[in-house]
Amino acid sequence: MNKSLGAKTLVYPAPVLVVGTYDKAGKPNVMTASWGGICCSQPPCVAVSLRKATYTHGNILEREAFTVSIPPEKYVQEVDYFGLVTGRNADKFEATKLTPVKSALVDAPYVKEFPLVLECKLTHVTELGLHTQFVGEVIDAKANESIIGRGGAIDIKKLKPLVFTPDTQEYFGIGKYVAKVFSAGKDI
Amino acid sequence: MNKSLGAKTLVYPAPVLVVGTYDKAGKPNVMTASWGGICCSQPPCVAVSLRKATYTHGNILEREAFTVSIPPEKYVQEVDYFGLVTGRNADKFEATKLTPVKSALVDAPYVKEFPLVLECKLTHVTELGLHTQFVGEVIDAKANESIIGRGGAIDIKKLKPLVFTPDTQEYFGIGKYVAKVFSAGKDI
Repeated sequence: MNKSLGAKTLVYPAPVLVVGTYDKAGKPNVMTASWGGICCSQPPCVAVSLRKATYTHGNILEREAFTVSIPPEKYVQEVDYFGLVTGRNADKFEATKLTPVKSALVDAPYVKEFPLVLECKLTHVTELGLHTQFVGEVIDAKANESIIGRGGAIDIKKLKPLVFTPDTQEYFGIGKYVAKVFSAGKDI
Repeated sequence: MNKSLGAKTLVYPAPVLVVGTYDKAGKPNVMTASWGGICCSQPPCVAVSLRKATYTHGNILEREAFTVSIPPEKYVQEVDYFGLVTGRNADKFEATKLTPVKSALVDAPYVKEFPLVLECKLTHVTELGLHTQFVGEVIDAKANESIIGRGGAIDIKKLKPLVFTPDTQEYFGIGKYVAKVFSAGKDI
């Protein structure tokens, strides 16, 4: 390990998450975030870190709820747009012709066309610096039948989630199957 | 979105992180974790969530430091082993013939053979339930020259990080380049 890169945010793979919220007036909004992921198995919780400047930041504090959708590769243009524009000035659903759906379980919308969504109630807010970390308890996960594979489990090759690369700022897809967890290392 | 899966931890992609710590006696230990990721840009911070039952959990509280390495695909057997066995009963470095290196910046070791590591000082501990979330400030990131590409940036196709799939419990690789961030959505 011979090259110091300085204090940088280099975790690979980073996810591409679409966070859905309502604003005070009830307008549905979505933004793209890559600083996040699962943070507890029981209760199931997901974390997303957002800058205070984002419209979503205020919406989550106001509504104490959000959704996290996993957008598939074919919507990369819409997903990128969600990260380029602020919901203060734009109706991102109208601009992309995607469809907001009101969650029946939490006070937040999700994108109908995206095949996997977690519906979350806010449980923890931590100020870390430029970003605030929001932890939400997953009340339900909903999936489209199109991404369900053998044994009723989600098939990542059907889901086709995006990968974010922090250093080069690019989107990548998912590659080949490598090995089974809690099995590959048994021979050591 | 027509299928409710219940309250489940379904974020894709999940990373495969190797967390390095010292125990009270100074023995280096590593474990594999997938509940984590970057959680703040400034100061740069990374979060990892661990069960209280893990040896690493106590080590982080004791030393207030840890490293997060990104293991490449070719070490999948060793990485899987790191998640199968507890450092209470095993010397995981000895068993895998991998090499612990003492960080010069934080009180934690990392794996010499893995090409990317974040050296972290513990800043936040949050009890979430089964998992405790540890947030560490990244003091430095170190990389092997072999994963550096154009413009001095990390090339994910050279790094070859692993992806964890929560529902099917498998490891996958990284796929093809899809698009440039903050560019693909400009035409909307």
